[in-house]
Amino acid sequence: MHNHKTQDWSRWGDKKLALDYIFHPRSIAVVGASSDPNNWIGQIFLRSLISFGFEGRLYPVNPKADEIMGLKAYPNVRDIPGPVDHVICSIPAPLVPQLIEDCVAKGVKVVHMFTAGFSETGEEEGIQLEAKILELAKRGGIRLIGPNCMGLYCPGSHISFEEAFPKESGTVGFFSQSGGNASELVNIAALRGIRFSKVISYGNAVDLNEADFLEYFIHDPETKIIAAYIEGVKNGRRFVRLLREAAQTKPTIVLKGGRTQSGAGAVASHTGSLAGADEVFDALCRQMGVIRVYSLEELADVIQAFLYMPPPKGCNVGVIGGGGGASVQAADDCDSAGLPVPPLPPEIRKELRKFTPPAGTSIRNPVDTMAGFMSPQYFEETIRLVASYERIDLLITHLDVDFMLQRGQEQVDKTVEALLRAGRACNKPMAVVILTAGAPEVAKAVFDIRQKCLEAGFPVYPTIARAAQAISKLIAYNETKQPIGNDAK
Amino acid sequence: MHNHKTQDWSRWGDKKLALDYIFHPRSIAVVGASSDPNNWIGQIFLRSLISFGFEGRLYPVNPKADEIMGLKAYPNVRDIPGPVDHVICSIPAPLVPQLIEDCVAKGVKVVHMFTAGFSETGEEEGIQLEAKILELAKRGGIRLIGPNCMGLYCPGSHISFEEAFPKESGTVGFFSQSGGNASELVNIAALRGIRFSKVISYGNAVDLNEADFLEYFIHDPETKIIAAYIEGVKNGRRFVRLLREAAQTKPTIVLKGGRTQSGAGAVASHTGSLAGADEVFDALCRQMGVIRVYSLEELADVIQAFLYMPPPKGCNVGVIGGGGGASVQAADDCDSAGLPVPPLPPEIRKELRKFTPPAGTSIRNPVDTMAGFMSPQYFEETIRLVASYERIDLLITHLDVDFMLQRGQEQVDKTVEALLRAGRACNKPMAVVILTAGAPEVAKAVFDIRQKCLEAGFPVYPTIARAAQAISKLIAYNETKQPIGNDAK
Repeated sequence: MHNHKTQDWSRWGDKKLALDYIFHPRSIAVVGASSDPNNWIGQIFLRSLISFGFEGRLYPVNPKADEIMGLKAYPNVRDIPGPVDHVICSIPAPLVPQLIEDCVAKGVKVVHMFTAGFSETGEEEGIQLEAKILELAKRGGIRLIGPNCMGLYCPGSHISFEEAFPKESGTVGFFSQSGGNASELVNIAALRGIRFSKVISYGNAVDLNEADFLEYFIHDPETKIIAAYIEGVKNGRRFVRLLREAAQTKPTIVLKGGRTQSGAGAVASHTGSLAGADEVFDALCRQMGVIRVYSLEELADVIQAFLYMPPPKGCNVGVIGGGGGASVQAADDCDSAGLPVPPLPPEIRKELRKFTPPAGTSIRNPVDTMAGFMSPQYFEETIRLVASYERIDLLITHLDVDFMLQRGQEQVDKTVEALLRAGRACNKPMAVVILTAGAPEVAKAVFDIRQKCLEAGFPVYPTIARAAQAISKLIAYNETKQPIGNDAK
Repeated sequence: MHNHKTQDWSRWGDKKLALDYIFHPRSIAVVGASSDPNNWIGQIFLRSLISFGFEGRLYPVNPKADEIMGLKAYPNVRDIPGPVDHVICSIPAPLVPQLIEDCVAKGVKVVHMFTAGFSETGEEEGIQLEAKILELAKRGGIRLIGPNCMGLYCPGSHISFEEAFPKESGTVGFFSQSGGNASELVNIAALRGIRFSKVISYGNAVDLNEADFLEYFIHDPETKIIAAYIEGVKNGRRFVRLLREAAQTKPTIVLKGGRTQSGAGAVASHTGSLAGADEVFDALCRQMGVIRVYSLEELADVIQAFLYMPPPKGCNVGVIGGGGGASVQAADDCDSAGLPVPPLPPEIRKELRKFTPPAGTSIRNPVDTMAGFMSPQYFEETIRLVASYERIDLLITHLDVDFMLQRGQEQVDKTVEALLRAGRACNKPMAVVILTAGAPEVAKAVFDIRQKCLEAGFPVYPTIARAAQAISKLIAYNETKQPIGNDAK
C-alpha cells in the first residue's frame, strides 16, 4: 500500500509543515467519477490523476458503475477495501453530508469538495448545509478543501485536476480562491517557463483557508515564491501576521479580487467572501513588502522576473531594439514604471558609431539598432557596449518578430543566438521583449523564440510596459527586503 | 497619362483639402530603387507600389540600372519622359540637395524623403543639410514629406510603403511621426477589422507637419476617425487650434511620444523634436475632448470601439462569461475603468435560474454562465435576459477559448453563433473578449472567432481590462461631445 517514492516522511514531524500530508495521500477516492465522456465533471479528476501517473491507489466511487477508466468502481467509500486518505467529492450538495459520515467511518483524512451550491449561493439552504458539513468533518477529524473548488495540483505527487498541466515540478506555490484562476495561471505560466511546487484551488474555504496554505508555503522547502489569488480573508489577524512572515521569508505576490465595489459584489456571489476595504489591504501590502498585482497576466509577469532575473543593482535600464517609435515608447514605458533610461556617455556612443550608420538609428539609449538586425554580430556588439556602461543596471532588449521574419527564419535564428550570447556574456540582468501584431502565422515563431530565451535563462515579456512593471516590482522587493528583515526579530 | 479612376478632381477646388493632391499623384519616381533583393530599402517602395497596382506611371531612378522589377529605370528624374508628380527619395543624405534641384527642374510637386541623417542626428552637418533642402524645396515650389519617414499608405490610390498592408480602404486617417509605429498600427489594425483612408509617416516634419495633416483629415470626407502619433509640435498655436476643431468634428485619438523625461530624450534623438511639457498637453486634451492613449495597442482598442460600437447610452455594463475568478476580475476591471456592473434585479435572476444550475454559477452580474458553454441555447438566452434589464447600457461577453476548445471545435462554433445571434437580437451595444493563455496551437481558433465577431459588427478585445478602458473612452467622448459642440459657434 505504501508506494510513495516522492514522500518525505521526516517532514511529518515538523509542526509548521503540518499540512504536508495533504499533498501526499496514499490513496484517492473520486466520488462522482463517471465513465460518460460527456460528463465533464465526472471525468476530469480521475482522468487527470491517471494521466499524471498517481502512484497510490485510485478508487472511482459510483453506485451505478462497476468499472471506470479501467479501474474497479465502488458504490460507496465504505466499500473500498484498503485505507483512503483523500476523497474528491463531485456529487450534488445535498448528498455531501452522508458522504462525510461515510468518510469519517472510513478514516479519510482530507475531503476536497468540488461540489458547489453552499454559502456562495447566498441562500439559507446552502449556508446551513455548509455549516452542517463543516461540523460533521470537524467532529470526525477530517480536513476540508473547498467547497466550490478544483483542489490540488501537485506534480511532485502526481496529483492534478487537469490532464494538460505540466508534469514537471517547480518552485512556485500558488493558492487560489478561484479554480478558473488556478487553471489560467498554470496555463499562462506553462508557456512562460514557470512551474509549480503546489497549487491549491480552495473555493469557499470553509475549513482550510488562505492562512493555512500561506503558513504551509512559508515553511515548504519546495516553495521559493508564494503566489496567491484571494477574494476574502477568514481570520484577518492570523492572515496578516502570516503575510508579514511570508513577505520576510519569500517573495509573496498577491492578486486580490474584489478591489472595487462591483468586484466586491462579484466576490460575494463567487465564494461567499467579504472583500474588505481595498485601501486597508493596499496599505498592509506596502507596509509588509507584499507584492501586489492586478491581473493574472501581471502575476505571471512578476513571477517570471523573480524566477529568471538576478536582482538588478539599481533601476537604470539600457534599452536595445529596432524602431524609433518603439524606442520612444520603450523609454516612456520604462520611465513610467520607475526605470529611468540614462543617455549613454560619449565614449560608448563613439564605439557604437563605428558600426552603426548615422541615418535612421539612435545610439543615445534607447539604442535603436534597426541596423543591428541586418547583422547579428553588430547586434551582439551593441548589447555588449550598452551593458559596459557602469550606470546601466539592467538591459531590456526588444525584437519585432513580424519585421524580423521578413528577412527569413535563418536571420531570426541568428539574431536570437547573438542576443542570447551577448546576454550571457554581459554581467547585467537582461529581459527580452517579443513584439508582434499577433497574426496567427507568427504564433509558432514567437513561441520558439520565447522558449529559447527562457532556456537560456532570460525572462520574456510581450510588451516593454509589462517587462518594466514586473522588473520594477522585483527591484522594489529587493530594496525593501533588507530593512524589513533587519526590523524583524 | 491621366488614368486616375479613384481621383475626385472636384475636391481640388476646396482650399481646406489643399493637400488632397498629395494622395493622388499621376506618377511616382522612386529614386534609389534597386534590383538587389538584399537591398531592403531599394526594394520596399517600388515593390509595394507594384503590388498595390498603382495606376499611374512608376519610374525607378538608379544610374546603375536599366530595368528594375520589370520597369525601365532612369539615371536621373530629369531623364524621365513624362511629368513626375511625386518622388520617393531613399538615396544618401548628401545627395539629396542635387535631387531636389533636379526635381524642381522636372516640376515635381511632392518629395517624400525616406532618407535620414538630418536634424535628428543632433549634428551640425545634418541640421544644415536639412535647412538647405527645405530652402531649395520652398524656392522650387516643392512640398516635402519627412525626412526620415516611410511616407504614404493610401489604399484608395493604390499607394503603400509595405506590400503586406491591406489593400482595402477604411475610414481611419492616421498621421505618425514614426514609420515603425505607422506600420505597427496598420498591422495590429489589420487583425482587428480596422482599415485606413490614409496613413502618413512624416518623420522630422521639416515642411509638411502634424498641423497640415490634421487640417486635411478634419476636412477629408473619407476620414471619419483621426488617429495620431506625435513626438513634437512645430507650430503650437496652429496645432492647438486645429486639434480643438478636429475633436469637435471627428473622434480624434492621440498617442504622444516623449511623455516622460527618458521618452523626451528618445524623441529628440528619433525625430529631433521637442516633446514639451506633458501636463500641458494632457490638460489641453482634456479641455478639448481629444482622446489620449498610451500605447499603439490602446490606440487600436479605442479605434475599434469607435468603429464597431454604437455609443452606449450610459456606462452600466452587463458582463457574461464563464469562470468565477474571471467574473470577479471582469467586475474589478470594468469598475476601475468607470463602468459599474450593477446587480441584476430579482425578476431577471428568477428567469436565469430557470435554466442555470445553482452550483458553480453566479446570476448576479457578472453572470457566470459556465453552464452556458454546455448549451449554446442557454448562453443565448442568458445574454438576452441580461440585455433586457433597463439599467444595463452595454454588454461585455468573455469567452475562454482554451476551455471551450476542450469540448471541440463544433461546440466552439455553436457557442460563437449563439453569441452573435444574441448580440444582434438584443438592442444594446456588445463587445466580445477572447481569453487565452496564448498557446500557439490556439492562435488560429482565436483569429477565426475574432473574425466572425468583427464580421458581425462587434468589437473584440484580448482582455476585459482593455475592452473596458477603450469603451470608457468612447462613452466619455460621446458625453463631452454635445456640450463642446454647443459651446463652439
